[in-house]
Amino acid sequence: MLNFEFYNPTRIIFGKGMIAKLDEQLSPQARVLVLYGGASAERSGTLNEVRAALGSRTFREFGGIEANPTYETLMKAVAMVREEKLDFLLAVGGGSVMDGTKFVAAALPFEGEPWDILTSKGEAAKKALPLGTVVTLPATGSEMNCLSVISRQSTGDKLLFSNPLVYPRFSVLDPMRTMSLPMKQVINGVVDSFVHVMEQYMTHPVDGMAQDRFSEGLLSSLLEIGPRIIAAPEDYDLRSNLMWVATLALNGLIGAGVPHDWTTHMIGHEITAKYHIDHARTLAIVFPALLKVCREAKRAKLLQYAERVWGLTEGSEDERIDAVIRKTEGFFEGLGVPTRLSAYDIGPDGITDILKLLEAHDMTALGEHGEVTLEVSRRILETAA
Amino acid sequence: MLNFEFYNPTRIIFGKGMIAKLDEQLSPQARVLVLYGGASAERSGTLNEVRAALGSRTFREFGGIEANPTYETLMKAVAMVREEKLDFLLAVGGGSVMDGTKFVAAALPFEGEPWDILTSKGEAAKKALPLGTVVTLPATGSEMNCLSVISRQSTGDKLLFSNPLVYPRFSVLDPMRTMSLPMKQVINGVVDSFVHVMEQYMTHPVDGMAQDRFSEGLLSSLLEIGPRIIAAPEDYDLRSNLMWVATLALNGLIGAGVPHDWTTHMIGHEITAKYHIDHARTLAIVFPALLKVCREAKRAKLLQYAERVWGLTEGSEDERIDAVIRKTEGFFEGLGVPTRLSAYDIGPDGITDILKLLEAHDMTALGEHGEVTLEVSRRILETAA
Repeated sequence: MLNFEFYNPTRIIFGKGMIAKLDEQLSPQARVLVLYGGASAERSGTLNEVRAALGSRTFREFGGIEANPTYETLMKAVAMVREEKLDFLLAVGGGSVMDGTKFVAAALPFEGEPWDILTSKGEAAKKALPLGTVVTLPATGSEMNCLSVISRQSTGDKLLFSNPLVYPRFSVLDPMRTMSLPMKQVINGVVDSFVHVMEQYMTHPVDGMAQDRFSEGLLSSLLEIGPRIIAAPEDYDLRSNLMWVATLALNGLIGAGVPHDWTTHMIGHEITAKYHIDHARTLAIVFPALLKVCREAKRAKLLQYAERVWGLTEGSEDERIDAVIRKTEGFFEGLGVPTRLSAYDIGPDGITDILKLLEAHDMTALGEHGEVTLEVSRRILETAA
Repeated sequence: MLNFEFYNPTRIIFGKGMIAKLDEQLSPQARVLVLYGGASAERSGTLNEVRAALGSRTFREFGGIEANPTYETLMKAVAMVREEKLDFLLAVGGGSVMDGTKFVAAALPFEGEPWDILTSKGEAAKKALPLGTVVTLPATGSEMNCLSVISRQSTGDKLLFSNPLVYPRFSVLDPMRTMSLPMKQVINGVVDSFVHVMEQYMTHPVDGMAQDRFSEGLLSSLLEIGPRIIAAPEDYDLRSNLMWVATLALNGLIGAGVPHDWTTHMIGHEITAKYHIDHARTLAIVFPALLKVCREAKRAKLLQYAERVWGLTEGSEDERIDAVIRKTEGFFEGLGVPTRLSAYDIGPDGITDILKLLEAHDMTALGEHGEVTLEVSRRILETAA
């Protein structure tokens, strides 16, 4: 096992009817900005439930945070917090709203150009407003981590920052609040979570027993949840399990003490930046191709995954690896999520454009060993053609 | 899944050489009391490593915290903190030292008789000194939870309290610091951790997918670690895995959103209080007998455990349950840990004495449904005779 530090102070408040508990989490004097995305927060009743829980506290609302939240939009929220002298940020939504809220929290007290928070990967942030979240879309794990991905319209950049200052103080996870989501978004959450786990698991073995078992447990759960939730969209237990699994997939726990490989996310971010394909759907394109191209580096873990998650024990090593890659691809396709660039009409010119973006963002040594050069990324994208 | 809150702010600093990181965790002005148990902390070099990391800070040392730490001893530490105006407590040891330190932290600012912290189960504590830990014995999980078990010599009581104020600010887990432990203590840690997991798992199903998978992963890891660590006591990876698994077994995570059954610990505490048998060894006596007596209430989970942890899929349900209870017993016995009261010469009179203590402490409705009455406890103890 590798040496590690693990720290995660976010309080999780989980279950049916838990939004009312906001009242216990916020000081009566708190001056709150409620941040949200589109009209669904209103339509689904979640915003009303939040307003009721805030009671007589002073609060303002800032809607319109887009999927892949932009610097341009978020700086308007920063201005609103400043003008109205608000002191607590409450994100109501999915990963985009939570990520955007983290940026607002760090940008508000920032001296200088807040985009530097992104270009410094978070290091430049020295203070942040406290924030909490009410999660409506299980997928990104943003409710229990200190990561945030922000896009900039003016340049087409999409960058990630991380800083312990932006851990949510609390996150309310009420599975009922996910019932009104379009099934496409639910399934995106399944895929996003699955790939989050994989990026902390599918590297090379370092004998992290609990980490491996936990990752395998989350993968097995998602394999079960995916098809079942399509068949039974109203099932509260499935919604609950997806919500908690998605949080555990990216709260730092399974990744503590083991190597990571974030290649899939990094290439996926560029595909989204260029072609506006849903984040999770870009992962389903890149990840199986990554497994094919990097199968030697990931050989031992592919065999472990094949046996422990899929029960594949027959045949030669290479046959088991072939089989488990096919099964992983089949899992995504079976959920209606394509695994090829061609499904989105992206051809050779598109691949060249994506590679240019990777180069522009210095994504030239990805992977657990830094071995995913631009040339390897090209092979991954060509394999996913 | 049941509704839950999960909150755990302890920072884990894990790995070889990490004691030096104490320096980053403590203010240069901190006035530290270092609490430890016996001479082994000195002999093993751990205390010296801690002293070096504290550097020029003011610190005092308080040794002699016994296994099953007592109120009487700990009140002397409280007096020392008060006299010397110390402001940070650093536990260096295993569960007893950490539990004791938590009590000192809560007792110091307590107005009134500090034993009330125990009789109120922790609710009476309103303030606590900050504390950190340097773990030398992986077993209790005390390094990442807010639980503490304290004994009182004058009455023979052994009670538990819990309060978020006594979460360690940080815990340093250096597996090298466990190398000098007697193997008996290492194995006690394996058994204690195994039963901790079981008490949050072996109840009835509530469809907590991640919780079940995580628990099963920890159990599988311990089944692997136990025999291997006896065969290879110097293996760093095994020590690391035992240390991290023991922490994860009782940090609140696997128990969030599922029912618990702490019967084994409660009966075990009384056996220790009366007969001074090592804590873990009392659990190995009670737990298999609990499974036998409560097999109907735990039927579904026993079958799940048999299949997922032991791979038992052949035979009738009852045959699989018989087999998995035998295997669990065999796991403890195989580690040299007896599973019968008779191994400690405790006979029918002893059982009567243990039941009297359970009654005196109101332990008359244990189990996930409160169905473990004194009569059921008698059957459990008789089954373990």
